[in-house]
Amino acid sequence: MTTIKNWQEYSYYLALHLKNKERSAFRKQFLSLHPNDQLAFIYMLNEHTRKRLYRYIAPAEFAEIFGRLEPSEQRMVVEELQPAYVQETVRAMPTDEMVDFLSGFSVTETVPYLNLLETHEAEKVKRMLGYGKHTAGALMTTEYMVAHITHTVADVLLHVREQGENAETIYYIYIVDDEEILRGVVSLRDILLEAPTTIVEAIMQDKLISVETHIDQETVLHIVRDYDLLALPVTEQGKLLGIVTVDDVMDVYYEETEEDFGELAGVSGAIDLDIGVMQATKIRLGWLLRLIVISMIPVVFIYLNPQHAYSIALAVPLIASIAGNAGIQSLTAATRVKELGNEGDFKKLVLRDSLVASLLATVSAVAVAMLAVVLEQPVWQVMLCTLLAIFLSSVIGTILPYVVKDSASASSPVIATWSDAITVVLFITLLSF
Amino acid sequence: MTTIKNWQEYSYYLALHLKNKERSAFRKQFLSLHPNDQLAFIYMLNEHTRKRLYRYIAPAEFAEIFGRLEPSEQRMVVEELQPAYVQETVRAMPTDEMVDFLSGFSVTETVPYLNLLETHEAEKVKRMLGYGKHTAGALMTTEYMVAHITHTVADVLLHVREQGENAETIYYIYIVDDEEILRGVVSLRDILLEAPTTIVEAIMQDKLISVETHIDQETVLHIVRDYDLLALPVTEQGKLLGIVTVDDVMDVYYEETEEDFGELAGVSGAIDLDIGVMQATKIRLGWLLRLIVISMIPVVFIYLNPQHAYSIALAVPLIASIAGNAGIQSLTAATRVKELGNEGDFKKLVLRDSLVASLLATVSAVAVAMLAVVLEQPVWQVMLCTLLAIFLSSVIGTILPYVVKDSASASSPVIATWSDAITVVLFITLLSF
Repeated sequence: MTTIKNWQEYSYYLALHLKNKERSAFRKQFLSLHPNDQLAFIYMLNEHTRKRLYRYIAPAEFAEIFGRLEPSEQRMVVEELQPAYVQETVRAMPTDEMVDFLSGFSVTETVPYLNLLETHEAEKVKRMLGYGKHTAGALMTTEYMVAHITHTVADVLLHVREQGENAETIYYIYIVDDEEILRGVVSLRDILLEAPTTIVEAIMQDKLISVETHIDQETVLHIVRDYDLLALPVTEQGKLLGIVTVDDVMDVYYEETEEDFGELAGVSGAIDLDIGVMQATKIRLGWLLRLIVISMIPVVFIYLNPQHAYSIALAVPLIASIAGNAGIQSLTAATRVKELGNEGDFKKLVLRDSLVASLLATVSAVAVAMLAVVLEQPVWQVMLCTLLAIFLSSVIGTILPYVVKDSASASSPVIATWSDAITVVLFITLLSF
Repeated sequence: MTTIKNWQEYSYYLALHLKNKERSAFRKQFLSLHPNDQLAFIYMLNEHTRKRLYRYIAPAEFAEIFGRLEPSEQRMVVEELQPAYVQETVRAMPTDEMVDFLSGFSVTETVPYLNLLETHEAEKVKRMLGYGKHTAGALMTTEYMVAHITHTVADVLLHVREQGENAETIYYIYIVDDEEILRGVVSLRDILLEAPTTIVEAIMQDKLISVETHIDQETVLHIVRDYDLLALPVTEQGKLLGIVTVDDVMDVYYEETEEDFGELAGVSGAIDLDIGVMQATKIRLGWLLRLIVISMIPVVFIYLNPQHAYSIALAVPLIASIAGNAGIQSLTAATRVKELGNEGDFKKLVLRDSLVASLLATVSAVAVAMLAVVLEQPVWQVMLCTLLAIFLSSVIGTILPYVVKDSASASSPVIATWSDAITVVLFITLLSF
């Protein structure tokens, strides 16, 4: 990779230019970098040189970098800048990034920014701030190419040449009618291949997919992936309002995956390295304490049956461990299948994983029973307990993601803790016969 | 969503046309669908109507659908088709999909397909079949737009108009020199905005990112996401050989996520619904049995210390459960951070999560100790055991993903099982003082 290989040397000279106050040399080299690398360079600087950098580049040039920062980083950077510089920067951002930035602010705080925009633009941003978090409306950008249904290919090409600079993508041109209703789409590829006098209505794809503003970002993600789209139009009662581009969808994918991982381990919201110690502890402790309540079931059962203590001490940790692990396996498989999911998949999954659970339970029960013989423990009870505990944990693991509303309640720790409780209750019940 | 809303009605009429043998009506409506929806329709058919559908559409039309099938589905479909139809279909596929399909075959089996291609094309496919699984070389397509460094903007535009139909993307045009060395890239946007007589060398972006053929697909994914690319060029010693497009990268993202999920739960390779009962059982049982070996540590310890059975029975399941859950939380956070990872993150993560672990351990130890008072158990031993077990499990969970080579050894079941062992050993050791 060219960029990565030369990066050390390149950033060394960049930093040198900045240190020596060689403004134009610095600008030339810095601005030829991709915003992602510009940001990587800024991360290397101390506050003093960072402030010089801000002075060397214009707000409009800084806007692309600023839009890539996390909200928490944006707030830190704002502290280091003159208010006028911040406002100019924000004005130069595409609407979706502007909305991301402003969404952390109170309504009053957004006023100075909105005042800088043209009325029409300000209205648009205000409306977008009103869309729910994680919806297509909040994710969309309003910088897209649009053409009227009566336009010719030549009209559209001219329009792309004149306005293309400001659009997020020029590779799809959306076709609307007099009421701004979305009627179709043409790709730039089509435009280049067709005769200049052709009317776009004749060549546009009119079976196109769009989403309403309130649609969840996860649905947006699935559509873009399934249909290999570079952008997806967003409408309200048929009126075209914006587009969601594939690079923003990639970021959503990343967020959603992070969420799924976190929920599966009861560590939701405590993964990100930006989260501090106290915050992470609070979140994780909340989950652990909730689980202790479940753990009290086996404690009470064992306390009430001291006569079986030795068998319990010996057999329960082993059986509960296998059952818990089998449950975690089933849960993870079910969570993924549900996440990707069609309706019919649930039946198919339950059928397969119940069979798998029976087999796992049988094999494990025989193995543990053999161990019980060696350790002179009640063989039949141990075997039956192993069989039932593993089967039940697995089946609960499979069904749990489909029945709980709050998906964080279907996590590995939850299933492991329930497995302990099930094992103890089963074992003590079996021993009492 | 237009498509989804009308889908039921649309597919009803499609099926009707097919049933009534209305070939041209069927073709017209079917071919206007997106390949993703064409595939969804085919899934609804029985073998008889499916075979009629194959007859109604040409191999070249079927190629786009065929490329979207999973390898296992492709093999099933091949069974239903005439060999000549299959060969024509494969010939019409883009090289990356052709390679995906053929990579499941032995060298001899690929011969009839390769014979259909022009020598130059066949050589290319053969070379691509040689690239390692999950590398940039295996992922790339060779249908891209290329122009010589001396060409003008007008030359390139003409070239796009003539050859654009066959390229996977026409939105980036790669610039090479006489030795086919990749020298730069121009976007179609640039081409449209520049004067026709401009030489591309003057306007091309020459600081561009490319990867060598052997680079892992995970790296490809990170680059495409970080730099918001629609395509990434793949080279060998500087020579341009292909491009990886963003839609293929989305599929990789999906695969990698699935892998991570599976590994985290010791259920790797057993999630997909296409995996049968026996195969899924085999994979999962393998993991469970390996863990039983670890579980033998507490069993042996308890067996050798029967005098402590009652305390063990009462305290160990509770402490081990909390410790295991804390370990799973840490493991999940660490796995994600590593996955996204910079070098410096490890230190930052260990520092933060050790502090979090200390806090979690302290709070839990106090809570469990209070319970020990109520249940008349050895308070100090219970408290110290809880403190140490939770702290150790958490720290091991944080470090594990970074120290094990085989990432499936850093799964939730592994950490939970080790937590059990640690708790028992600690508790018995403490009781013996």
